[in-house]
Amino acid sequence: MTSKKLQKLIRVARGEIPADLVLKGGQVVNVFSSTLQKTDVAVSGGRIAGLGSYLGRETIDCRGLFISPGFIDGHMHIESSLLTPANLAPVLLPSGTTSLVADPHEMANVKGLEGIRFMLQNSAGLPLEIFFMAPSCVPATPLETSGAILEAKDLRSLLRRQRILGLGEMMNFPGVLAKNREVLGKISAFRKKIKDGHAPLLSGKDLCAYVSTGIGSDHECTRISEAREKLDLGMRVMIRQGSQARNLKDLLPLVTPSNSRRLLFVSDDMHPEDLMEKGHLNSVIKEAVAQGLDPITALQMVTLNPAEYFGLSHLGAVAPGYQADLVVLKNLSSIEVKAVLKKGKKIAEKGLLTEKITPPGRRPSLSSMNIKGLHPDRFKIPLHGRRQAKVIQLIPDQILTHTRVCRVQGKSGGLHLDPGQDLSLVASVERHHGTGNIGLGLVSGLGLRRGALASSVAHDSHNIIVVGRDAEEMYLAVKTVEAMKGGLVVVTRGRVRARLPLPVAGLMSDHSAEEVRAEKKTLEKALLNSGCSHKHPFMILSFLALPVIPELRITDRGLVDVDHFQIVPLFEN
Amino acid sequence: MTSKKLQKLIRVARGEIPADLVLKGGQVVNVFSSTLQKTDVAVSGGRIAGLGSYLGRETIDCRGLFISPGFIDGHMHIESSLLTPANLAPVLLPSGTTSLVADPHEMANVKGLEGIRFMLQNSAGLPLEIFFMAPSCVPATPLETSGAILEAKDLRSLLRRQRILGLGEMMNFPGVLAKNREVLGKISAFRKKIKDGHAPLLSGKDLCAYVSTGIGSDHECTRISEAREKLDLGMRVMIRQGSQARNLKDLLPLVTPSNSRRLLFVSDDMHPEDLMEKGHLNSVIKEAVAQGLDPITALQMVTLNPAEYFGLSHLGAVAPGYQADLVVLKNLSSIEVKAVLKKGKKIAEKGLLTEKITPPGRRPSLSSMNIKGLHPDRFKIPLHGRRQAKVIQLIPDQILTHTRVCRVQGKSGGLHLDPGQDLSLVASVERHHGTGNIGLGLVSGLGLRRGALASSVAHDSHNIIVVGRDAEEMYLAVKTVEAMKGGLVVVTRGRVRARLPLPVAGLMSDHSAEEVRAEKKTLEKALLNSGCSHKHPFMILSFLALPVIPELRITDRGLVDVDHFQIVPLFEN
Repeated sequence: MTSKKLQKLIRVARGEIPADLVLKGGQVVNVFSSTLQKTDVAVSGGRIAGLGSYLGRETIDCRGLFISPGFIDGHMHIESSLLTPANLAPVLLPSGTTSLVADPHEMANVKGLEGIRFMLQNSAGLPLEIFFMAPSCVPATPLETSGAILEAKDLRSLLRRQRILGLGEMMNFPGVLAKNREVLGKISAFRKKIKDGHAPLLSGKDLCAYVSTGIGSDHECTRISEAREKLDLGMRVMIRQGSQARNLKDLLPLVTPSNSRRLLFVSDDMHPEDLMEKGHLNSVIKEAVAQGLDPITALQMVTLNPAEYFGLSHLGAVAPGYQADLVVLKNLSSIEVKAVLKKGKKIAEKGLLTEKITPPGRRPSLSSMNIKGLHPDRFKIPLHGRRQAKVIQLIPDQILTHTRVCRVQGKSGGLHLDPGQDLSLVASVERHHGTGNIGLGLVSGLGLRRGALASSVAHDSHNIIVVGRDAEEMYLAVKTVEAMKGGLVVVTRGRVRARLPLPVAGLMSDHSAEEVRAEKKTLEKALLNSGCSHKHPFMILSFLALPVIPELRITDRGLVDVDHFQIVPLFEN
Repeated sequence: MTSKKLQKLIRVARGEIPADLVLKGGQVVNVFSSTLQKTDVAVSGGRIAGLGSYLGRETIDCRGLFISPGFIDGHMHIESSLLTPANLAPVLLPSGTTSLVADPHEMANVKGLEGIRFMLQNSAGLPLEIFFMAPSCVPATPLETSGAILEAKDLRSLLRRQRILGLGEMMNFPGVLAKNREVLGKISAFRKKIKDGHAPLLSGKDLCAYVSTGIGSDHECTRISEAREKLDLGMRVMIRQGSQARNLKDLLPLVTPSNSRRLLFVSDDMHPEDLMEKGHLNSVIKEAVAQGLDPITALQMVTLNPAEYFGLSHLGAVAPGYQADLVVLKNLSSIEVKAVLKKGKKIAEKGLLTEKITPPGRRPSLSSMNIKGLHPDRFKIPLHGRRQAKVIQLIPDQILTHTRVCRVQGKSGGLHLDPGQDLSLVASVERHHGTGNIGLGLVSGLGLRRGALASSVAHDSHNIIVVGRDAEEMYLAVKTVEAMKGGLVVVTRGRVRARLPLPVAGLMSDHSAEEVRAEKKTLEKALLNSGCSHKHPFMILSFLALPVIPELRITDRGLVDVDHFQIVPLFEN
């Protein structure tokens, strides 16, 4: 703070002049001493001036209520919400989340530094304070064509940006262990900054090696023993509770008063409808408390703990000098949010925004749609006679896949799919550089009987992924995605039945959360009427091209055998 | 770390190449999970590479022993030890202290920025890692002549120094509350850095105001209620246990598993003989454990907790990537230190240094002795007849003083001291700028029957303080201090009986700890044979000129009424 701001804050704190706002008579959640304190909270110039008995030009009656620091999500991919930062803010703020640390990994894979700058611009000055980690793994692998490549020298250019706190989750733990030059260069460039980790099941000496580089967190733990080992080695364990990956129940027994300072709750990836219907960190705290965690400990895990880890010394507590990001709660069991204040201004009440959020800067336009050589024939697999083919076999309720070898046969027009068979064509269409790359394969377990589904959300390179039973329909689906500059589309019986445009890098909508939810509902309705029996086919699609999760994947360069980390032919010899 | 260093660390961590050193079979104090872990500790290039089973080119057998992170003293004035940083290191290292955060407040009051630079130079590259806080209150008051004045603009020049972590204890809390421009300028200059506090008994709204400026710690708490209030407001409470001020017993009941992360043990001021005979933080932990504190919690309070507060992310834990500052302990009850490693090298064993410490740079010479107009007559108080005089009345076992009004009488040669009266002359002789200032007063309660004592250690301006019954002897004492370029001296019966030279700014010896202890012993012996009945007269002397502690003090400008913060005449009207 400048001297002038300090002066005013001191005057308010001492009671020499009235506060801008006083929250009267509530119980403050004291995250330092893990206690509740009945006291007024005086706010001035966006900061907390004092706790005690205060007069203010405005007051909020908090009798019978609890006052918590604003919630901080320490690890979130905004892109998974399909919303731009500016459109996400109105969804998160009423739930009590006032800050988050985002890893714009998806955006960076599509648009590189330009994409990161967009995320910074689109979140500048929002009442939801968004910090970023510089994506460490763009692209995730050399087995796919991503929109951008970020090398250590590119990331270095982000070091001095105020809202970039460090290096994003280092998913390439094999690269770390192999002492890959580029990987170590990135870690070394961020040696004075926070470095997030991502190392599922890594253990023992390999985990030691990974941690020795200064990587300070992990949000991939699924078992207590794994979490305990990582905690013991000094990692902040981020207990993830997102839309899909939900580790709270399994990891909660780990938490004790003696170790909780090193633990956080994070969401990682959240679907927009979950955020709107269930909430965000508020619902995680509620679940944790329902499962027996002390509410103050739970609140520390989304306030003081992330603030300490990320060095956000102005956030995470209700105390003099801290930014007045406050959540007024009806109780500490259901964590019902009554009101939310950001920098001392009421921004939400009873689940509704009380102030309009003006998106910063220009309307988002960040197209990445450069497809060449598209033709229905490109989705046909040439085949004469019978052959053994490798099929991506989905596993129910998992994103892991198996490799199944299946006898297929050719007819006129190439490979022919038997109507009774749960087998579809799958293709990954390169969309960033007009390479004309299309990788072709087969997938089983999706329950698609007819039609085609296409999406520009396909981790991590976000080429267009399309599944279908018919080359013409697949072509139509991809052409529709292209025309929308990205998005999701359902085609059945030769016609587009529903679409969800995602024109911002092919990842995010430029519509509000309400609109996106409505569009998603329409899409789901069309899915019900389509020939697909799978509950969340687009979620499955989004992972089919991710060549770091075993066992068989498809990228624009072809089928990937993940275990051997190489492109393999579709047909067996 | 650079990529190259990372590479090697990874290789060692993975067991691909042997470690430099392995501590085998000990129990590691895990400060993250508050547990003990039986495991080897592999060290490479001064860092911890891994925990697990390792081979090393060297090993240390730690079976039956405990391995703690090196201790960090979060607040210490090196000058109180009378030793230079380079001479303090051999004393602290065998006790387990491997790092400390020093506030060179005394040095700065004498020599300003030059003094701070000296402290930086004299501690550069030592195996005892010394960080500094920029002294915030130089001078402490305008009622005395200090050697230097440090304004906000001067302190700003220190901001980019790597080992300067923030702003030193802001003792001028009245200045903060009064919104003093210079004070707020200093705080504002260090807004992105740590700011230490010092606010004894400050409470309520004034404490809120003080804390609202971002001041993050306090080491002046004497009562639980005071400590709790400060903790609740977000301050790190540093429980001080020094040579004189000892708050451990009173504050220990505050510590719980739910709040201990915000608590530290610090020493503040330690006499050299205490450090040599009792130890440093090791003895504080021992005491705390003896009083019932969990040993792991106690160890966290001198390892992870200070490291977190000061943002020293490479220190404070035994985990991969952390600096290998390790203390091998025989047990967790008496905290008996078996061996100490700094950056992976054994530096001490069984209380003795195992490697010679080479003092960095040139031999210390930092004289500050510029006295003008000295003459025996200047120590005489002109008085004819009888008058009422203000006398500094000492209070047993306290550094507070009272104002006592006393009838005195003049003879030829001025004020005459009755032989039966416990009354001495006291003078503060300006020594920095040759102003010729000498402040004169009277002190009672020292039990001085004859002779004179003089010292160049006199908080905070460190002018020469001298007490005596006779002007000639006082003159001799001051002249002797001047000739030594600083130090302590005992004069009786017209002769110098003992002296302890402190030529480094008049504050520190350039001798080793052993030599200083011997010199101090000689001094104490001379004191026993002198006419002084007080146990620690030099300690009392050192506070007589400190015009921020009530009630009556003496500076080179005269008698100071601390409560009214002004110079007052010796005689009543």
